[in-house]
Amino acid sequence: MVAQLEHHLAGSNQTQVASTNLFTYTFDSLPLQRGGQLGPVTLAYETWGTLNAEGDNAILITHALTGNAHAHDIVHPDDPKVAWWNLLIGPGRPFDTTRYFVVCSNVLGGYNGSTGPSSIDPRSGRGERPYAMRFPLITIRDMVNAQRILIEHLGVRQLAMVAGGSIGGQQALDWAVTYPELVRKTIVVAATAALTAQAIAFSEVQRQAIMLDPLWQGGDYAPGQGPAAGLAIARMLAMITYQSEEAMEMRFARQPAQHSGIPSPTHSADLGDRFDVESYLYYQGQSLVRRFDANSYLYISRAMDLYNVSEGYPSLEAALRRIRSKALFIGIRSDFLFPAAHVRKLADQVRSLGGDSTYVELDSPHGHDAFLKEWEQMTNALNM
Amino acid sequence: MVAQLEHHLAGSNQTQVASTNLFTYTFDSLPLQRGGQLGPVTLAYETWGTLNAEGDNAILITHALTGNAHAHDIVHPDDPKVAWWNLLIGPGRPFDTTRYFVVCSNVLGGYNGSTGPSSIDPRSGRGERPYAMRFPLITIRDMVNAQRILIEHLGVRQLAMVAGGSIGGQQALDWAVTYPELVRKTIVVAATAALTAQAIAFSEVQRQAIMLDPLWQGGDYAPGQGPAAGLAIARMLAMITYQSEEAMEMRFARQPAQHSGIPSPTHSADLGDRFDVESYLYYQGQSLVRRFDANSYLYISRAMDLYNVSEGYPSLEAALRRIRSKALFIGIRSDFLFPAAHVRKLADQVRSLGGDSTYVELDSPHGHDAFLKEWEQMTNALNM
Repeated sequence: MVAQLEHHLAGSNQTQVASTNLFTYTFDSLPLQRGGQLGPVTLAYETWGTLNAEGDNAILITHALTGNAHAHDIVHPDDPKVAWWNLLIGPGRPFDTTRYFVVCSNVLGGYNGSTGPSSIDPRSGRGERPYAMRFPLITIRDMVNAQRILIEHLGVRQLAMVAGGSIGGQQALDWAVTYPELVRKTIVVAATAALTAQAIAFSEVQRQAIMLDPLWQGGDYAPGQGPAAGLAIARMLAMITYQSEEAMEMRFARQPAQHSGIPSPTHSADLGDRFDVESYLYYQGQSLVRRFDANSYLYISRAMDLYNVSEGYPSLEAALRRIRSKALFIGIRSDFLFPAAHVRKLADQVRSLGGDSTYVELDSPHGHDAFLKEWEQMTNALNM
Repeated sequence: MVAQLEHHLAGSNQTQVASTNLFTYTFDSLPLQRGGQLGPVTLAYETWGTLNAEGDNAILITHALTGNAHAHDIVHPDDPKVAWWNLLIGPGRPFDTTRYFVVCSNVLGGYNGSTGPSSIDPRSGRGERPYAMRFPLITIRDMVNAQRILIEHLGVRQLAMVAGGSIGGQQALDWAVTYPELVRKTIVVAATAALTAQAIAFSEVQRQAIMLDPLWQGGDYAPGQGPAAGLAIARMLAMITYQSEEAMEMRFARQPAQHSGIPSPTHSADLGDRFDVESYLYYQGQSLVRRFDANSYLYISRAMDLYNVSEGYPSLEAALRRIRSKALFIGIRSDFLFPAAHVRKLADQVRSLGGDSTYVELDSPHGHDAFLKEWEQMTNALNM
């Protein structure tokens, strides 16, 4: 929805989209970490609560790979399905909208209203061709720099908190290191200083599946005619890595499929009886295709792989020593994409370098996705 | 090589292929577990050592998904790369060829000389069309039944041992349960009573990647013109599941690629710097494509998913209670495809039902693949 509306917003500098709380802000140019610059850049964002006169009660919420700016829903504040951190935001909740001005922007390179590969490439002239794979390589640092421009535009002078999980956690960590003077508290959930080889490997298999789809066309597909099967297969694999053996065993084990009507991404015939876990993954793949763009997936997942908090500093220690904010690290016992042991190690390193660092572990079987499911444990951790 | 030679063997009942120790045996028909029958059926196999007059000193070795009959190489008996269990077979080794008659056959549904989807479908008449996806659904039980016909043909009256890892371990377990009177010792390595939901999920992503490749053509590709990219992507994912986070971190971590000349399966341009783990996986994908058939991959991996030792019995206990042989179960600490805890549980169940069962765990970081790498630990375990 949002991405389609973006066209109507062209030319305006800030516009509210009627159906949601979504705003956009467009600025001329963003210098990029790996060289060159991108412009104009639009960020779509939502806000909840009110900025104080000092401009220092803002919380920036940063989202994960296929997330968006809709972290909270004021119409349905108690439904965990309509907004991704819905139950953590609102009056009396950890991100308390009676005290804080909460901002969540769609990530640079994304699909839900911010400038990304599906945006029109201004160099294409009257042809109005999307960037597609002509979009520049972007990094977590670039995402953070774009967010900084946005919050300054909003009048924020200092962030009370920056918080996110997964790729959002990488962004939060990068905020703490890159702009230590602008952040009072950093909350890094299920993210580490850099991805493991195994996580990079899973990520690359997903990208190869997208690019294998003949509809990908080197990235130059028409809107709605993209590599649906490839993106669905990528999502199937991603969903496995977001869960855990334990959680999948509790939920699916070897149960036969309850919904055999859902086609597989390739519309293949079942080879013998179908398992419930297969139908579930087909459904998850199909769902993502409806709401996400394959080229955005390539760029953002690559930014995740490339992220290394120490990049640009003499050492990891030199990078982490820059942190001035309180830092809360939340790991998940059963996470195998961002293993809890690595999150804990990062928290320990920050503390050993003199930082004010706390580590909390969610005791959850739900794997990486626990940060989007374990509301009570998340609330307790965030209130520490 | 072997698969191409199969054509020249048509009509003969047993022939030795000159370049290796490989024989084939063809029989008329195999009734299938899920109904119907398949025929004629050829099994390619190798043997080492001599069958005694009593016909009771045979060892059957069963191979994994993309393995083959070449478990041992008499010309290069000390090179672990030329045959998959090379260092475990031979004089003085656990599968001692001075005492035993060791047999390893290529699995039913396979590509290396045994009847599989790439074999000519006799129903196709003069058109001589391969089975492709018209090959019937086969199970681990069908593979075992075909092996039984082979060993009876060879004069074997009772197996001194049946041993295999992964899908080969499923076959070994199924031998012990289905033909308890024919087996004196069963060795199940890195295999369980049935796959987890997570393992099925990984397996299905691999199959979807194969079928997404436009060259797959519903399975009707010409020899050498199959879905190379899809099969390579499937292999990339499989290789991740055969290793472990720990092992990949030791070997690759975030090292930049040393061999950027290896193309990705889709021949995509690198998105930023390439990691070494990516080049490694591209290489592994490419290597499998040269030696394996995509349709065989679909059928055998599905047989792995569908396998459940209790199928056809009132309960798991009823199935395991049938075992009469000694049973040695070998788990691998870091295996996440067939978790050690599940292998141990299976061993415990057999023992609690009165079976002569032993469990040994390989203390290896190498994940599932440790049964193809940890020669010393494997030798010690097998000699127990």
